[in-house]
Amino acid sequence: MQETVRVAVDAMGGDNAPEQIVKGAVDAVNSKKEIKVILTGKKDQIERELGKYTYPKEQIEIVHAGEVIEMAEPPVKAIRTKKDSSIVVGMNLVKKKEADAFVSAGSTGAVLVGGQLIVGRIKGVERPPLAPLIPTKNGVALLVDCGANVDARPSHLVQFAQMGSIYMEHVIGIKNPRVGIVNIGAEEEKGNALVKETFPLLKQCKDINFIGSVEARDIPAGACDVVVCEAFVGNVILKLYEGVGATLISKVKEGMMTTLRSKIGGWLVKPALKKTLKSFDASQYGGAPLLGLNGLVVKAHGSSKSTEITNSIIQCVQFKQQQINEKMKEKIMAEKTE
Amino acid sequence: MQETVRVAVDAMGGDNAPEQIVKGAVDAVNSKKEIKVILTGKKDQIERELGKYTYPKEQIEIVHAGEVIEMAEPPVKAIRTKKDSSIVVGMNLVKKKEADAFVSAGSTGAVLVGGQLIVGRIKGVERPPLAPLIPTKNGVALLVDCGANVDARPSHLVQFAQMGSIYMEHVIGIKNPRVGIVNIGAEEEKGNALVKETFPLLKQCKDINFIGSVEARDIPAGACDVVVCEAFVGNVILKLYEGVGATLISKVKEGMMTTLRSKIGGWLVKPALKKTLKSFDASQYGGAPLLGLNGLVVKAHGSSKSTEITNSIIQCVQFKQQQINEKMKEKIMAEKTE
Repeated sequence: MQETVRVAVDAMGGDNAPEQIVKGAVDAVNSKKEIKVILTGKKDQIERELGKYTYPKEQIEIVHAGEVIEMAEPPVKAIRTKKDSSIVVGMNLVKKKEADAFVSAGSTGAVLVGGQLIVGRIKGVERPPLAPLIPTKNGVALLVDCGANVDARPSHLVQFAQMGSIYMEHVIGIKNPRVGIVNIGAEEEKGNALVKETFPLLKQCKDINFIGSVEARDIPAGACDVVVCEAFVGNVILKLYEGVGATLISKVKEGMMTTLRSKIGGWLVKPALKKTLKSFDASQYGGAPLLGLNGLVVKAHGSSKSTEITNSIIQCVQFKQQQINEKMKEKIMAEKTE
Repeated sequence: MQETVRVAVDAMGGDNAPEQIVKGAVDAVNSKKEIKVILTGKKDQIERELGKYTYPKEQIEIVHAGEVIEMAEPPVKAIRTKKDSSIVVGMNLVKKKEADAFVSAGSTGAVLVGGQLIVGRIKGVERPPLAPLIPTKNGVALLVDCGANVDARPSHLVQFAQMGSIYMEHVIGIKNPRVGIVNIGAEEEKGNALVKETFPLLKQCKDINFIGSVEARDIPAGACDVVVCEAFVGNVILKLYEGVGATLISKVKEGMMTTLRSKIGGWLVKPALKKTLKSFDASQYGGAPLLGLNGLVVKAHGSSKSTEITNSIIQCVQFKQQQINEKMKEKIMAEKTE
C-alpha cells in the first residue's frame, strides 16, 4: 500500500467556504484511500457540512480554529496576530510535520506570507514562487512566478526555472520539460534589463532544458512547459488568460443568440463545446503550489468550487509521493556547492 | 471642404507587401476625398499593383525607394544605412512636412527607431510610446506603451497617460476617458517599485481622469479606456490577447467538429458568430500610433491585410483634423512650465 499523505485544508477560505471546501475534501478522500484530510476552521460549521456526506470517517479529521483571515486584511499583520486562524493553524500542522501539505482558497497574501514565515523556505531557496498550471492548446504549462515576489532578481528566476522543471517532470509527468523565459521578441538581445541579465544564466544552467525566449502570443499554443517570468508579468499573464477567455466566451454566447438560426445552432453545439472548453479552464488543474517551502502549500482560487479543492488535494499526493521537495533540496544544494 | 491629409505609406513593409498595402491605399482614397496617399517603395512593383484598380489618380502618388528594411535587421543600423529604404524615405516626407503621417507594416524596431531619429519627438516628450487600440467587450481601449520603451520611469508613464487621454478623447471620441494603471491588485499599496512610484504622480495629475489600478483580468471587460503600463507588460498584454484568442477560437472550432450534432450546429451558428467575433478582432482598428512625435507615425501589424492598412490610413485623417499633436504639445508644455 502507498504511504498516507496528510493534507491540511483551510475550511474557511474562499468565496464558497465552508460548503464547497468540505465537499471537495469529501470527494478527495472518497476517490483515494491514501489521503487523510485535516480540515482547519470552525468545528461546528465543519461538522454540519460533513454531516451531509458519506465517507470513511478515519480519513477526515477536524482541527478547530476560531478565527478567519479576511481577504482584505494586510497579510503580515494577519498572520502575526491571528494565531488561531484556519490558515495559521493549518500551516503550523505542516511546520510540526503533522501534515504534509496545506491547501487554502483564502487570502493570497496571507498564504504567501504564512508560507514563508510559518512553513519556511528550503535552505538555499531565495524566493518561493507561486506556480499555477495554465491551460495550453493540448495540455498545460507551469507559470512561475505568478505573484509571490515583485521586483525579482536574475538568480531568483534561475531557481524558478529549476524548481518548475522538477515539478513539471515529476508531478505532471513531462520528460525534460522545455523552459522558456517570457520576452518581447524571440532574439537573445531583446528584452528589459532583468531578462537580458537572466538569459545567459539560464543558458548556462545545465540541469534544465532551456529553449530561450517565448513571446506571450505563443504561450497558449504550448510553446514551452515551464514559463519563467517575474511575478508582475506572471500575474498579468494569469489574469489576462481569465479575462480574455471570459470575454470571448461571452462574445460566443452573444453571437449564438443573435438570430433564430444561430439559436438553434447554439443549442446543437452546446454539449460538444462545453466539453472542449472545459480543457481550457484553469480550475480543472487544482491550485497553485508555492514552490521551495519545507512542506507543500497550495493556493486555490478564491472562487474555487469543490472540484478545484478536490484536484488541489489530489495534487498534494503526487507531490509527496514523488518526493518533490527532496528533489528540489538536492538540486538547489548541488547548485550552491558547485 | 475639409483640408487634405497627406499620408505616406510604406508599400514594401509587412508579410503581404506590396499587394495588400497598395489595395489598402486604393480602398482608403476611394472611401475619402480628403486623403492623399504617397506610396514609398519600388516604383515598378507599385505601378503594377495600382494597375489592377480604379481610383482618382490625383489621390495617389508614388515616391520611389530602392531599398527595403527586412524584419530581422538590427533597427538602428538599418535606419542609419538604408537611406533609400521605403521606411526612411517615407519618414523623411513627414520630417520635411511633405506628408502629415506615415503608415508602415514593416519592421517594428525600424519604425520605432526611425520615428525618434528621423521624425523626432515633440519638445518635452521624454519617450514616445507605441499605443495600439485593443478590443474590449463593448468597445476599445488604448494600450500605452506596448513595446517602444523598456525599463521606463514613472515620469514616462505619466506622459503616456496624458497623451493617451488626448488620443482617446479626440480620435476615438470618448469623453473624459478613464485612465487605469496595470497592477497586480486593486489597492494603492500593491505593485512593483515602478507602479508604486507612478501611482501618486497619476493621482496628482489634474488633466486626466485617473481611476486607479486595473487588474489584467478586467481589461477585456472594459475596465478603463487608457491602459497605462510599461512596454514589457504592454507587449505581453497585446500578444497574449492574440494568443489566448487564437487558441480559444481554435478550441471552439474543434468543439464544433466533434459530433454530427455539433457539426450541424456549427454550420448554423457560423454566420452570427463570425460577426460577433469580428468586433473582438484587433486588426479592425488599424495600426498603433507612435505618440508624441512631430508628425504621426502608425505601425500596422506585420500580417496586415488591406483592411488594416485602409483603417490605419483613415485613422490618420482624424488624428490630423483633430490636431492631436498640437493638443499634446500644449499639454506637455503646460506641464513643464507649471
